[in-house]
Amino acid sequence: MKKFERITTFLMHFLTEEVTKIGLRRVVLGLSGGVDSAVVALLAKRAFGDNMLCVMMPDTHSSPQSLEDAKTLCAAFDLPYEIHPIGPLTQAYNQGKSLSPLRQGNFAARMRMAVLYDISAREQALVLGTSNKSELLLGYGTLHGDLASALNPIGDLYKTEIFEYGAYLGVIPAILSKPPSADLWEGQSDEEELGYTYARIDAFFRAYVDERATEEELLARGFEAPLIEMLLHRIYANHFKRRQAIVAKLSERTIGHDFLYPRDIKH
Amino acid sequence: MKKFERITTFLMHFLTEEVTKIGLRRVVLGLSGGVDSAVVALLAKRAFGDNMLCVMMPDTHSSPQSLEDAKTLCAAFDLPYEIHPIGPLTQAYNQGKSLSPLRQGNFAARMRMAVLYDISAREQALVLGTSNKSELLLGYGTLHGDLASALNPIGDLYKTEIFEYGAYLGVIPAILSKPPSADLWEGQSDEEELGYTYARIDAFFRAYVDERATEEELLARGFEAPLIEMLLHRIYANHFKRRQAIVAKLSERTIGHDFLYPRDIKH
Repeated sequence: MKKFERITTFLMHFLTEEVTKIGLRRVVLGLSGGVDSAVVALLAKRAFGDNMLCVMMPDTHSSPQSLEDAKTLCAAFDLPYEIHPIGPLTQAYNQGKSLSPLRQGNFAARMRMAVLYDISAREQALVLGTSNKSELLLGYGTLHGDLASALNPIGDLYKTEIFEYGAYLGVIPAILSKPPSADLWEGQSDEEELGYTYARIDAFFRAYVDERATEEELLARGFEAPLIEMLLHRIYANHFKRRQAIVAKLSERTIGHDFLYPRDIKH
Repeated sequence: MKKFERITTFLMHFLTEEVTKIGLRRVVLGLSGGVDSAVVALLAKRAFGDNMLCVMMPDTHSSPQSLEDAKTLCAAFDLPYEIHPIGPLTQAYNQGKSLSPLRQGNFAARMRMAVLYDISAREQALVLGTSNKSELLLGYGTLHGDLASALNPIGDLYKTEIFEYGAYLGVIPAILSKPPSADLWEGQSDEEELGYTYARIDAFFRAYVDERATEEELLARGFEAPLIEMLLHRIYANHFKRRQAIVAKLSERTIGHDFLYPRDIKH
């Protein structure tokens, strides 16, 4: 597939340039057993060889199959990995509380972030993000949790593209055949929750986000009103997850207002 | 002081507008026993009355005096508060590892973030940031730790201004008289670490950031070359903490590149 050849060439440049220009040469990423992090892992391996590390961070109630699939991927592609269970952390917090599944899921995602960033400090490595464009637009992700990273190579690829890309890169069938899940609690299914398939959702995002279709045009193209409403609500209600905190402006030059430079500016 | 009267009026509008326009009415913040979070707490109390919550999150080795000072402040101003020690979390992680003080400090800061965000979910509240402009420019703060917030009312005030503002607002002397510390480990002193006082550092930031003085002008104004070099290095080496992750651009409209809206956009 020409498309993914071109994308791979671009992403190799992106990854090596963004890492080396700040004086580092290693990356780390959380490997969940899902397709998104599998794709990022294989890209990191191609770009950095053994200067990459996959970190598996199962919680006590995580599916053992996910960990097995992650290990099988590492074995198949000779990916360096470590396993750091977060059960001791989530149990220490949950004890005596009765948190909703959503709160537990968000807390667990933040524990993984803290562990992964700590390992990145040990390794003098950058943290790679593994959220795809569909998830970023839907707000499927935990702020300061799985959404936290220094670089995200797949944040501009829709979920349906990630499956195709995974197949192109040789991701193992056990991972490719899994139904998409944010995995915040057991049995969670994105498509069941949303009420639409990713094929449908991604088609909408392409039309609305990339092609800037108006609502009239979207209706004319056959997108039903409830789908449009649900997705527009999700895009904007979750926009805060894609932006930095707001600093109250009190001076001539304020961080985030007019003190603005690229992320990796050098003096 | 006219200056702080004006600032307070502005910040009352800022806080109530930013919170209510997204349909919420409560805020939470981490109260450390230092002057920054004390100022934010008193502002929140003025803006939201009892619809605010201070959360103290001492670690096992945190100074007991800090917690006492925080409690005294709450008693003096009738601030609602809860205490959530993070010792069980940091101990669960540190066990069997020999982490550097910096790694321990960053991990602890991220545990506090996770606890505070969980409480904000319980309270349906926004998280207020407590980093001042000096710290934000110096990079004194943990990414996805104490730097994480939805709104920061004091991020455009320098550390020296925070002390003046604290005095104006009536912050208790025990807190006002404490030497500035990022408090990542015991006995840490910002000014010792930096080798310069905040008075000197803030004067530099004012000249360089707000007045956009050139390096020649800075030298002519009496700022010594090593000070200039150290602070410019700090500003730019830590710039990544003030920006979102970079998403590799692959499409017409990419999050963080050209899919850009205010943080609280509504559809």
